[in-house]
Amino acid sequence: MKTSGIQAVLAPLPQPLIDAAVRAALAEDLGLAGDITTAATVPPGTVAEAVIAARKAGVVSGFDVAKAAFQIVDAGTSVTAERRWGACQPGDVIARVKGNARALLTAERVALNFMGRMSGIASLTRRYADAVAGTRARIVDTRKTAPGLRAFEKYAVRCGGGHNHRTGLFDAVLIKDNHIVAAGGVAAAVERARAAAGHMVKIEVEVDTLDQLDEVLRHKVDAVLLDNMSPELLKKAVKQVAGRCLTEASGGVNLDTVAAIAATGVDMISVGALTHSAPVLDIGLDFSPLKTRGKRQL
Amino acid sequence: MKTSGIQAVLAPLPQPLIDAAVRAALAEDLGLAGDITTAATVPPGTVAEAVIAARKAGVVSGFDVAKAAFQIVDAGTSVTAERRWGACQPGDVIARVKGNARALLTAERVALNFMGRMSGIASLTRRYADAVAGTRARIVDTRKTAPGLRAFEKYAVRCGGGHNHRTGLFDAVLIKDNHIVAAGGVAAAVERARAAAGHMVKIEVEVDTLDQLDEVLRHKVDAVLLDNMSPELLKKAVKQVAGRCLTEASGGVNLDTVAAIAATGVDMISVGALTHSAPVLDIGLDFSPLKTRGKRQL
Amino acid sequence: MKTSGIQAVLAPLPQPLIDAAVRAALAEDLGLAGDITTAATVPPGTVAEAVIAARKAGVVSGFDVAKAAFQIVDAGTSVTAERRWGACQPGDVIARVKGNARALLTAERVALNFMGRMSGIASLTRRYADAVAGTRARIVDTRKTAPGLRAFEKYAVRCGGGHNHRTGLFDAVLIKDNHIVAAGGVAAAVERARAAAGHMVKIEVEVDTLDQLDEVLRHKVDAVLLDNMSPELLKKAVKQVAGRCLTEASGGVNLDTVAAIAATGVDMISVGALTHSAPVLDIGLDFSPLKTRGKRQL
Amino acid sequence: MKTSGIQAVLAPLPQPLIDAAVRAALAEDLGLAGDITTAATVPPGTVAEAVIAARKAGVVSGFDVAKAAFQIVDAGTSVTAERRWGACQPGDVIARVKGNARALLTAERVALNFMGRMSGIASLTRRYADAVAGTRARIVDTRKTAPGLRAFEKYAVRCGGGHNHRTGLFDAVLIKDNHIVAAGGVAAAVERARAAAGHMVKIEVEVDTLDQLDEVLRHKVDAVLLDNMSPELLKKAVKQVAGRCLTEASGGVNLDTVAAIAATGVDMISVGALTHSAPVLDIGLDFSPLKTRGKRQL
Amino acid sequence: MKTSGIQAVLAPLPQPLIDAAVRAALAEDLGLAGDITTAATVPPGTVAEAVIAARKAGVVSGFDVAKAAFQIVDAGTSVTAERRWGACQPGDVIARVKGNARALLTAERVALNFMGRMSGIASLTRRYADAVAGTRARIVDTRKTAPGLRAFEKYAVRCGGGHNHRTGLFDAVLIKDNHIVAAGGVAAAVERARAAAGHMVKIEVEVDTLDQLDEVLRHKVDAVLLDNMSPELLKKAVKQVAGRCLTEASGGVNLDTVAAIAATGVDMISVGALTHSAPVLDIGLDFSPLKTRGKRQL
Amino acid sequence: MKTSGIQAVLAPLPQPLIDAAVRAALAEDLGLAGDITTAATVPPGTVAEAVIAARKAGVVSGFDVAKAAFQIVDAGTSVTAERRWGACQPGDVIARVKGNARALLTAERVALNFMGRMSGIASLTRRYADAVAGTRARIVDTRKTAPGLRAFEKYAVRCGGGHNHRTGLFDAVLIKDNHIVAAGGVAAAVERARAAAGHMVKIEVEVDTLDQLDEVLRHKVDAVLLDNMSPELLKKAVKQVAGRCLTEASGGVNLDTVAAIAATGVDMISVGALTHSAPVLDIGLDFSPLKTRGKRQL
Repeated sequence: MKTSGIQAVLAPLPQPLIDAAVRAALAEDLGLAGDITTAATVPPGTVAEAVIAARKAGVVSGFDVAKAAFQIVDAGTSVTAERRWGACQPGDVIARVKGNARALLTAERVALNFMGRMSGIASLTRRYADAVAGTRARIVDTRKTAPGLRAFEKYAVRCGGGHNHRTGLFDAVLIKDNHIVAAGGVAAAVERARAAAGHMVKIEVEVDTLDQLDEVLRHKVDAVLLDNMSPELLKKAVKQVAGRCLTEASGGVNLDTVAAIAATGVDMISVGALTHSAPVLDIGLDFSPLKTRGKRQL
Repeated sequence: MKTSGIQAVLAPLPQPLIDAAVRAALAEDLGLAGDITTAATVPPGTVAEAVIAARKAGVVSGFDVAKAAFQIVDAGTSVTAERRWGACQPGDVIARVKGNARALLTAERVALNFMGRMSGIASLTRRYADAVAGTRARIVDTRKTAPGLRAFEKYAVRCGGGHNHRTGLFDAVLIKDNHIVAAGGVAAAVERARAAAGHMVKIEVEVDTLDQLDEVLRHKVDAVLLDNMSPELLKKAVKQVAGRCLTEASGGVNLDTVAAIAATGVDMISVGALTHSAPVLDIGLDFSPLKTRGKRQL
Repeated sequence: MKTSGIQAVLAPLPQPLIDAAVRAALAEDLGLAGDITTAATVPPGTVAEAVIAARKAGVVSGFDVAKAAFQIVDAGTSVTAERRWGACQPGDVIARVKGNARALLTAERVALNFMGRMSGIASLTRRYADAVAGTRARIVDTRKTAPGLRAFEKYAVRCGGGHNHRTGLFDAVLIKDNHIVAAGGVAAAVERARAAAGHMVKIEVEVDTLDQLDEVLRHKVDAVLLDNMSPELLKKAVKQVAGRCLTEASGGVNLDTVAAIAATGVDMISVGALTHSAPVLDIGLDFSPLKTRGKRQL
Repeated sequence: MKTSGIQAVLAPLPQPLIDAAVRAALAEDLGLAGDITTAATVPPGTVAEAVIAARKAGVVSGFDVAKAAFQIVDAGTSVTAERRWGACQPGDVIARVKGNARALLTAERVALNFMGRMSGIASLTRRYADAVAGTRARIVDTRKTAPGLRAFEKYAVRCGGGHNHRTGLFDAVLIKDNHIVAAGGVAAAVERARAAAGHMVKIEVEVDTLDQLDEVLRHKVDAVLLDNMSPELLKKAVKQVAGRCLTEASGGVNLDTVAAIAATGVDMISVGALTHSAPVLDIGLDFSPLKTRGKRQL
Repeated sequence: MKTSGIQAVLAPLPQPLIDAAVRAALAEDLGLAGDITTAATVPPGTVAEAVIAARKAGVVSGFDVAKAAFQIVDAGTSVTAERRWGACQPGDVIARVKGNARALLTAERVALNFMGRMSGIASLTRRYADAVAGTRARIVDTRKTAPGLRAFEKYAVRCGGGHNHRTGLFDAVLIKDNHIVAAGGVAAAVERARAAAGHMVKIEVEVDTLDQLDEVLRHKVDAVLLDNMSPELLKKAVKQVAGRCLTEASGGVNLDTVAAIAATGVDMISVGALTHSAPVLDIGLDFSPLKTRGKRQL
Repeated sequence: MKTSGIQAVLAPLPQPLIDAAVRAALAEDLGLAGDITTAATVPPGTVAEAVIAARKAGVVSGFDVAKAAFQIVDAGTSVTAERRWGACQPGDVIARVKGNARALLTAERVALNFMGRMSGIASLTRRYADAVAGTRARIVDTRKTAPGLRAFEKYAVRCGGGHNHRTGLFDAVLIKDNHIVAAGGVAAAVERARAAAGHMVKIEVEVDTLDQLDEVLRHKVDAVLLDNMSPELLKKAVKQVAGRCLTEASGGVNLDTVAAIAATGVDMISVGALTHSAPVLDIGLDFSPLKTRGKRQL
């Protein structure tokens, strides 16, 4: 899916999650004493206007979270989107913020910390997605996310044109080597999982070799995770699967290798780096000159 | 300070913070249904031993957090450190984990997500710290941290041989351009901050030019943040300060430029990338072959 | 699956969920002043033994939660299972509890409230599951659960030999009439869901008529929810589907009708009553005569 | 009291309790990814109107909670009551909901889960209250409530024309057999409770026989709980008490027996089933045909 | 009741409340960085012994809370009571603490903050209780407590030989002047309260004059609050009540006036100052000389 | 600083802290059943106006918190300040409250509990600050605060013209006798602290004698805490320090001694009693006669 079509289907972050995470982030930054610099230097009646602007090219994500940060600090702050998501170039205005100057200065870092990180992930995802454009391969994420921020990071992956793998341990079965050993073989593992899991839960099995793949394909599974295989081996595996289930490539994926991997015909390529190693996208808050509203009133 | 001496003075992460963050991360990964793959495939009586091992060279951080993850899932799990912090090489064993196989598999990702991120930050910090070795400059962090994880990330910076800048908006005054404009000038801003802040709170002022520096130095401040100055300018600034307060360089710092910046004689170099863009350190859990303990008991 | 085999694959309730829910329940029952009756009447040094016993026949669920209730009130309480799950007859001992008499009396109601409700759900589920034994139909639950207790109730369904439908709005796509209208038709709805959802997410579509079913089957979906159809209509629908996807019957299901519905060949029968209207299973705590341990010590 | 007079004296549920419980329920249903079906299929600009309607006869409870569910998901949703409480017939409109279609679909189940359960309890309570109409007996609840939902369930009992017994262990003394044994007799138990409890706390003692009742009446207590007595025995007990304290019948109460029990002259009849086994009242959300507001805007 | 008999009937603080409050207090004191002084100066292997000692005479309260503070910081800390409650003289050892020196120093202030406050309240309560010894009057507290600490403060009142008035707005009816006006008179107010409240809830009415008292006594109430009456007036009021309900004096109570108020024969004297203005009891932690355990180990 | 100038620099309490603390306080007071007296007696449609008025002279603090209490109970309540802070005389109107009578009566005690306590602290602080007027000494607080309320109490100190010492263990180094012993001497303790602490963290050392002071001054510290010294000794200490660092007097400070201590020339005087023993300021809510709005509507 192209970024431009995302807005039609992208589920918004659940509002209670946004509220809770932003409050926690503000608590962390404000401590017990609050923004002592701003309180000491900025008269209460001062108003301000600012733009959230991209300093680098990338893909925007996190506007709703940044908006919540400003409005939890001061419900009267106006925050309007120019570019709620999608690609941005250096200098592009993402949003406009207007209100009490103290509130803007106090909320700035929390708003940008969310937006910078989320946009960083969206931007990196976009690069991977662009690299596989024209193939059938989807770029998907992993569970290698920042603790406590998984909802935000998986949302950012979607903003960047990627797709989500399972959310956690609870919403899909992924059988790995230790599970197979403990269950006493692939057959037992898949059968037990099939018996235990709900009918809306998919089952995927990790395989390292074509022999293992052969064994797995004897059972009905929804997907196979082809782990650390070369493009050559992947191509053989895809051929061997022959559409009987989804194929996912994993391991050794980077921007140099991803196109070749996609060319093997796999359905998904999972990339841990999307969330565990994406650098922040540089986004800043640029203030218009400050003015004081009427006489200073407390 | 060298990494080897850190253990003598490094404050442990507050235990209630570890508990709360690990429980939140487990909740995120376990959802309502738990680890459905492991439950389906691994018999309850199975025991396991595993080592947490480094796959790349770097600096270790986060052992206590990983330990909490394993023990919150199953209090009977044994987790012992081989290399609680300090440098690691590929293959180095960091810790040994032993207990119920289900618990190990269920806690694995949360434990590694904390440890990988924290070690990633420690490792990058170490590279910066090594790059300025022999100078008076300390590498310091910023408030550009992952929301909700600041305590963990600032701890990781300390593990890597860096130092912490202020924790948040509440524990130090940092006067920037907008504060100065709002207050009506440097003199007013510093005076008001001095009047309002507690006597244990330090005051730092950001300056962009030597003229601004000159004005700031007329007032008693604890530190100046020299923003986006070239090494040449920094050298002049340090000379101009002449030990009257601490000097901090900020902006345009990367591993290519940091040595030259340190050579200007500044006291601190703040690096946002330590926390906002550090790639994870690749750390994994390697299981010994699984065995079942006695007869399967539920 | 028969109840007797459940223990091999039943995922335990995540421990952090148990802790949090039990603490909330205790807070609710203890208020600020605690168990004022017990404190006034039972000397601190008194010890007690008691059994948790079934007063009616049914299926047991919730031992781990009850155990947590006793041990959060007093970590020294011993709680051992005689019948951790599975069928029980009136008078059957489910567990033995031993420790400080004050703690037992204080935790009793919270422990039984969890266990009675969960066992009530398991027991009702078992009755439905028994009624469809010998058919291919699985009894599955719905999202009609007590707010805040979904994990516990869905676990109880599994204890009773049922299976779980999706956990919430997040882990499976279920397209109903309003979704189809809003999307502009079945084709658009399914296509958009396919494009947006992760590859591990299944897609189910609700249909009321065979015509709708016909239209849905033109698209690749994982399951169809056959809503409020008579057994005759269900049988036709199953034939029409011909194994191309899973079939789920829903609406008008009760213990009188479920066997006939199962006989139509559907794969799943979802029953809201399992969680929204299951009466509690009567379980009580029977104390052995109280004794005081040594001299009363505070 | 008749249902029609309840509104004059019914304490509303504390708003912070509503907020917290609804947010927890939404978190449970939305997980990290939110309502993926609605996001994929319903364009953001779609507006909707719907009515909350009764499908069965009963007594309504929980409007304020349902309203909160819709408005926490989208503050702009309009929710107005037609029948905030009191009796309803099949087809009766309880409330009207209007707003963004996505928000309505997303909040629907949480709103109905609260309202269905609370109305189920109110409806069952009403049946018991009607059965004892014309006697002095009040129908009262117990502590056998769903963990975490006690406030909501006890409120629903009040909506149905019942009254609340003590809220928890903290707000009234209820001395049972084990307390008496531990204290060394009724005299000691009551005296110690009297000495310890605050002057606004009432004391009730459970008795199984008329002899025990005789002994209890020698001490000043506020109420006696007559446990598992036949109507004949209850009548004798009421006579024996002769107005010296309140009398409560408990045990073996159901809709077949409650009238006879009430006819014995007891002041209260406690019924655990009100909260532990009330089936849900069937309440649904009926949408008017969906429309899209202006052009689709994101 | 004399302090010496309190232990037989004093309900312990609910453990979940202690846990939550101590964790919140530690979070407040430790912030994100922890005890930076201790970490920098005290080697990890250092062990310490200390006594919690009274510096002034008073009544001890809060041992369990202090113990939790030490053990949440380090579960291995040993904390044993010498004087868990009851009177103390300057220099008296209240408890002994032994364990890791870092943990003792880190937990010290939180432990003492709870214990000092709670003991301050217990001590002031004791002085009031002693001042009315020999009369029928109980000293009772009010709802004028520190927000978030009501359970702890009301427990401390009980430790000091006082009794608790209602816990909050929820567990007793207290009808004041505005309630009477709004209801349209005393008769309506009492009748409506009687109709609405559960049978275990007592009803008290505030009166300012003997005429009002006369009117209130025409209705059945459990207690009257005689507000701001002189001892002479109180004596008349008590005579007028003639045992028909409990009598509570309130307003203008201090250590100089309380004996005369008690001599009027009232049942209760409520004293807001017990909780809103009790000075802390000076309690300190005295360390034995520190020693390091074996070689410094990390 | 004079109270009159505080508003220019006083950091507001972080809004998320206010929300959380007020909700916790309301939960404590409302329990599960709410304000049963008001619900029973005050018709829902009743409106009320009231003023928050001082009953004693003092200094006001906590308006924002009281406002939140009224508005969390009912968002439609209007709360406007007449005297948001600064000195008040008996009878002075602090604020005006207008809205639903039920909401006003329900929120009253929580609002006043915060405001009374905070104003009590501000008032006592003001007395100390006035007593040292004309000297260089600042009155500063300590960590001896009510658990969970530190932010509110330290804010109140600022409202009273005092200043804050460190917030907790995390934002400044304060080396005491045990730290020095454990580190092996003053030199080691200061050096280690300097090495470990961030550059924005100040270091203070506690000394009991002039000899100790002499030793400490050989190292670069930001402040010395002169513990329990007589004014004569303090004067000598200040002379000995000679401006090389800040000086803080501590111990034995009360309103009788503080002027003499300030006269010694110390920079700060820390007073634990500001927060641990300040009596509440008597503030009340005075209602205008109640009226009912239109016909009673529910």
